[in-house]
Amino acid sequence: MTPERFAFFNHLIDHRQLDLTLVNDGIHKQQNLSAILRTCDAVGIARIHRVFDHRSARTFRGTAAGSHKWVDVVTHETSSEAILPLKEQGFQIVAAHLTESSVDFKAIDYTKPTAIVMGNEKFGVSDEALALCDHVVTIPMIGAVESLNVSVAAALILYEAMRQREHTEAFGVRQMGEEAAQKLLFEVTQP
Amino acid sequence: MTPERFAFFNHLIDHRQLDLTLVNDGIHKQQNLSAILRTCDAVGIARIHRVFDHRSARTFRGTAAGSHKWVDVVTHETSSEAILPLKEQGFQIVAAHLTESSVDFKAIDYTKPTAIVMGNEKFGVSDEALALCDHVVTIPMIGAVESLNVSVAAALILYEAMRQREHTEAFGVRQMGEEAAQKLLFEVTQP
Ligand SMILES: C[S@@+](CC[C@H](N)C(=O)[O-])C[C@H]1O[C@@H](n2cnc3c(N)ncnc32)[C@H](O)[C@@H]1O
Ligand SMILES: C[S@@+](CC[C@H](N)C(=O)[O-])C[C@H]1O[C@@H](n2cnc3c(N)ncnc32)[C@H](O)[C@@H]1O
Repeated sequence: MTPERFAFFNHLIDHRQLDLTLVNDGIHKQQNLSAILRTCDAVGIARIHRVFDHRSARTFRGTAAGSHKWVDVVTHETSSEAILPLKEQGFQIVAAHLTESSVDFKAIDYTKPTAIVMGNEKFGVSDEALALCDHVVTIPMIGAVESLNVSVAAALILYEAMRQREHTEAFGVRQMGEEAAQKLLFEVTQP
Repeated sequence: MTPERFAFFNHLIDHRQLDLTLVNDGIHKQQNLSAILRTCDAVGIARIHRVFDHRSARTFRGTAAGSHKWVDVVTHETSSEAILPLKEQGFQIVAAHLTESSVDFKAIDYTKPTAIVMGNEKFGVSDEALALCDHVVTIPMIGAVESLNVSVAAALILYEAMRQREHTEAFGVRQMGEEAAQKLLFEVTQP
């Protein structure tokens, strides 16, 4: 590995956001999943959670080009199975959901450990997931359409999180343990 | 029409951004086009431009649910045909493009009349379009993937534009002439 490439990977590892994650609560279109994975990688997310969508029962195939070594996707049977362990680890749970009682997505403090819950293309976030959320946020829309594409909505929230995190002292300070970092470095540099 | 609905439509018309537009420079996946149209509607854009993609030669079919009456899509044969009239009308032309010499997308003043140029899924923004641009912007990415999905990238830039515009005095002041507003109101209230 060239020194440039080594420096590049170290930079990536220093900026991995172990305390930021996404819970895909039943999103099933392949193109949306792939767009979301690319965005997660772009903001430094190491692992996301996926609730198996029983309504459409599709299987998850493939990954976004280049991101599969970097972003882990953990599959769960139910929303609770995905969300409860995150709550125990101290993550605030923020659902992106279109409802009257939600707050502007920019009003949340994303510098705290945060899991963003995104809903199914047609049915939105499940009631089971909503019951476990600390906050429900909406991205303001001034037009006539009812909702944004789910990968677009996820990106707007994740980049808002990054915008806030960039201004903290912890930004760029390695969160990953030495062993995990070495393991990742080894994996990504394998052909 | 109920008074609530009338007030809703008037609010939309007051927030239409006639001096903000998007030039789709050869994007051809239907799902991306549809996601972009929804986002354009959500930030109040009235009209976007589309350069026919000769490389893939697909025709544009359909529109995003609910947005077709609100967002006009004007098709052009070449990038110049789309961009030159906008330049003449005083729009600054901002290409979203991944290159070393580009600037952070947040560094641009989007309160000026602005057209955002988005590129093809595979080939990016065309050389013809790049030659006509005033600025080239990139959305920072700290991971390993090479680019974001095009509809995700468009949304991040358009919502940054809205973020800036929301803080100006002109925000919410009707830009549309009375006649155009009445015509639109008539159209959208037709079944
Ligand atoms: C296409 S939307 C689902 C719409 C569904 N009909 C509903 O009312 O929930 C898919 C997901 O994208 C996210 N989403 C889309 N637009 C949003 C917005 N403006 N604010 C917050 N989340 C949004 C939510 O997570 C939603 O569950
Ligand atoms: C999938 S990308 C095209 C990638 C293409 N291989 C290239 O290098 O240009 C499609 C379009 O999305 C936009 N885009 C994607 N990621 C971007 C980023 N990080 N910054 C700016 N624009 C981006 C650009 O308009 C680009 O032309």
